[in-house]
This record gives sequence, structure tokens and C-alpha cells, in this order.
Amino acid sequence: MASTLKQFYSDYLACLNAQNWAALGSFVADDVVHNEHRLGLSGYRDMLMGNFADIPDLVFHAGLVAADAPYIAARLDFDCRPKGTFLGLAVNGRRVRFAENVFYEITDGKIARVWSVIDKTAIAAALR
Amino acid sequence: MASTLKQFYSDYLACLNAQNWAALGSFVADDVVHNEHRLGLSGYRDMLMGNFADIPDLVFHAGLVAADAPYIAARLDFDCRPKGTFLGLAVNGRRVRFAENVFYEITDGKIARVWSVIDKTAIAAALR
Repeated sequence: MASTLKQFYSDYLACLNAQNWAALGSFVADDVVHNEHRLGLSGYRDMLMGNFADIPDLVFHAGLVAADAPYIAARLDFDCRPKGTFLGLAVNGRRVRFAENVFYEITDGKIARVWSVIDKTAIAAALR
Repeated sequence: MASTLKQFYSDYLACLNAQNWAALGSFVADDVVHNEHRLGLSGYRDMLMGNFADIPDLVFHAGLVAADAPYIAARLDFDCRPKGTFLGLAVNGRRVRFAENVFYEITDGKIARVWSVIDKTAIAAALR
């Protein structure tokens, strides 16, 4: 089961990195909840499209994955150059490296809930 | 294996909540690394003792745990009143609720590496 979940998660990240928005509904539930906000699939897609608009060189890469049904936990490592203000910080194209530790709850084969924390402190430190 | 890891993690949190520092070495490796800093067991204990000094009503509670050897991932939910400045924010005894998403790597039965991200943004929002 853990290996199945890991394959699912790898395929999900590949979908994001390909910006294959037509396929997103194969991975994300229609009523997905992100950090207690019920974004729904369209709101979730809009959030991701906004991420790629703000960060043209965005790549999703999982450094660590722990799969324990119904949960997947991942530590995503980012190395990118956000164009302007990112998370309230004036990055303005500088290179920043930071992590996101994120949990997903999988229901009926799709991501139904997400609890994400981004290491904003690391970004702020990199800009000092 | 997942259930063994979860029991280990539950026992570790109980050790923290009891502030049973004499027992910490049963859970944490002598050369533990926390967010890329090699704190070692004594530095790790000092960090935790500092947390309890700064936050007298601190309780560690895992809302989510995913165990997938050699990793444990947890979402810790905090509801507490830090005394003064916490993570650079002037909390001054106000009640704050926030999460920490954290990964642990278990080696030879002990926590050898920790990758933690605290949701500082949520604390800042609560203080506004």
C-alpha cells in the first residue's frame, strides 16, 4: 500500500511539473480542502497556476516521502527564483531555497485534504 | 513496523510532555541533527528545555502521524501562551494556535535527524 501511495504521489508531482492541468482531477478531489480552506479542484488548480506564474522556474521535488494510508507526508525541496513578492517577502527574482513539509489525506484514490507548512523563515534568512 | 514506530513516537512525545530529560537519550541519538544543525543529544535537550521555559503551558500533541520506516512524519498541533517573544514575534502571553509539520529519521531505534517547519505565518496572523 505504501508503494502504491508513493507511485500515486510521484505521478501527482509529475502532473504538477508538466502543468498538465487537464489531468489534475485524476489526483485531486472535487471538494479538496487546503489548510482548512475548501478550495475545490478549480480553486486548487488556480492556486497552482498562480504558483507557476509567480515562480517561472518552479519545480516540485520531494526529498522525503512517508506513505502510511490514508496519509502521504512529503518534504518538498524548492530551489527557485520567485519574480516579485513571495509570501509577503520581496524576493524579486533572487534565488531562494526552502522546504515545504506537507501532509495529504487520500480518500477514494484522490487528495482530499492538504496540510502544508512552508519554511518562510528560511526564505527570510536567505534574503538578509 | 508502522505500529511499532507509532508507539515509539507516542512514547517520545510522552517523554517530552513529562519533561523527563533523563529518559530523552532513549529516544534521541547522541549525534542528532535538527534542521541541518548537529545539536547532539545535549543541544537537543537544551532546545526543548528552552521551549518549555519560553512556553510554560507547552504540550506536544500529534494530530497526524505517518510512519514509514525509517521515517516518522507528524503534524503537531500547539495551543499555548508563549511568555515573551516567540520566533521573533511579540506574543507576550497571548494564546496562539499553530502547527508544526516535522519529519524524523529513525536510525538504530532512535531519532537521528529532524526536519521541522513551524507555521509562523499562522502565529503572525493570530496576533494581528
